[in-house]
Amino acid sequence: MSPAADHAQSAAGRPAAGRRPAGSDTRGLILAAARSAFASTGYDATSLRGIARAAGVDSALVVHYFGSKDRLFAVVMRLPDGFVENAVALAAQGGDGLGERLTRFFLAIWEDPVAREPMLALIRSAVSNEQAAATLRGFVTDALLVRVAATLEVSDQHLRATLAGSQLIGMAMLRYAVRVEPLASADVETVVAWLAPTLQRYFTADP
Amino acid sequence: MSPAADHAQSAAGRPAAGRRPAGSDTRGLILAAARSAFASTGYDATSLRGIARAAGVDSALVVHYFGSKDRLFAVVMRLPDGFVENAVALAAQGGDGLGERLTRFFLAIWEDPVAREPMLALIRSAVSNEQAAATLRGFVTDALLVRVAATLEVSDQHLRATLAGSQLIGMAMLRYAVRVEPLASADVETVVAWLAPTLQRYFTADP
Repeated sequence: MSPAADHAQSAAGRPAAGRRPAGSDTRGLILAAARSAFASTGYDATSLRGIARAAGVDSALVVHYFGSKDRLFAVVMRLPDGFVENAVALAAQGGDGLGERLTRFFLAIWEDPVAREPMLALIRSAVSNEQAAATLRGFVTDALLVRVAATLEVSDQHLRATLAGSQLIGMAMLRYAVRVEPLASADVETVVAWLAPTLQRYFTADP
Repeated sequence: MSPAADHAQSAAGRPAAGRRPAGSDTRGLILAAARSAFASTGYDATSLRGIARAAGVDSALVVHYFGSKDRLFAVVMRLPDGFVENAVALAAQGGDGLGERLTRFFLAIWEDPVAREPMLALIRSAVSNEQAAATLRGFVTDALLVRVAATLEVSDQHLRATLAGSQLIGMAMLRYAVRVEPLASADVETVVAWLAPTLQRYFTADP
């Protein structure tokens, strides 16, 4: 990721530029440490404190630049602003209709060429690069889908989250990366109608 | 693929060695032409005659070495012997239980480290290489899943085939390529119990 892209991505976050002339270096150090930490230890076991230590800065600076672990993760992953929070909020609305809400949420990201690009890059890298694979694992499990499953009163939350992830990533692969027809050109409503019940079952059905 | 691997793969097919000393060259020419044809025009539009022409040999020689288009495709894809025929035979048993039969069939391939390797290589290549992507498209659509769907009396056979493909490839990605837990270590029966109804619905449910 270029520093310019980093900067553009963080513009919607906390104001950092101007106040601290050397800030972009500090910010870059924190991002590099975060990228490495998320990839090597996974989302769950990574702390802001550990990232700060690895970057050689105070924890307060990490909070200053990025606000929270979710937001730092989103910047590292180049996710749209509020991505993780929004996904978890969808789940907090309860199990009814969760499959459809999540399917629509994911398709909206993937239908947007700008938001799609870094996700595609992650999937491309994850099949051949262990660090990217670790990032994808953390993303599917700890950071996102497990937190969705955790809002529900169901057993096997981690397994359910990874099953949902398998359908969503397979859809991303065939529709957006490899572009298999007629799936690649099917309208969003058609895809939602087929995928939503699958996700609903993975999250809420009895095993 | 090494010539040795080619040779080993064809050992279960028609006997070619011995009778024709220069055969390995001819065989290699046919394979190269087939690989290129499947990737560029897809499984459906590729004919044994076209492959023979591209390889500069008589069609009868292609049949002599590989038997049929299915078998030639399987060698190019390094698929287990009879892979395509077996999948289509599963479908011919009818729609009832098709989801479970297909899920078991795919998992059996993926659980075998030797059979899995070339499939993994194809998925890895397909996300970044257009020729591999075209091969994967042909595999998911014309060569396999569409022929499964074609045995059923349902609408939208191509769309159903690609939906099933999205779940199967997503499972391959997360369980075998990226190895996301607990999916990577879940026992086969657990995965079958979750996936079979998804495939069943994609192939036979009303849209």
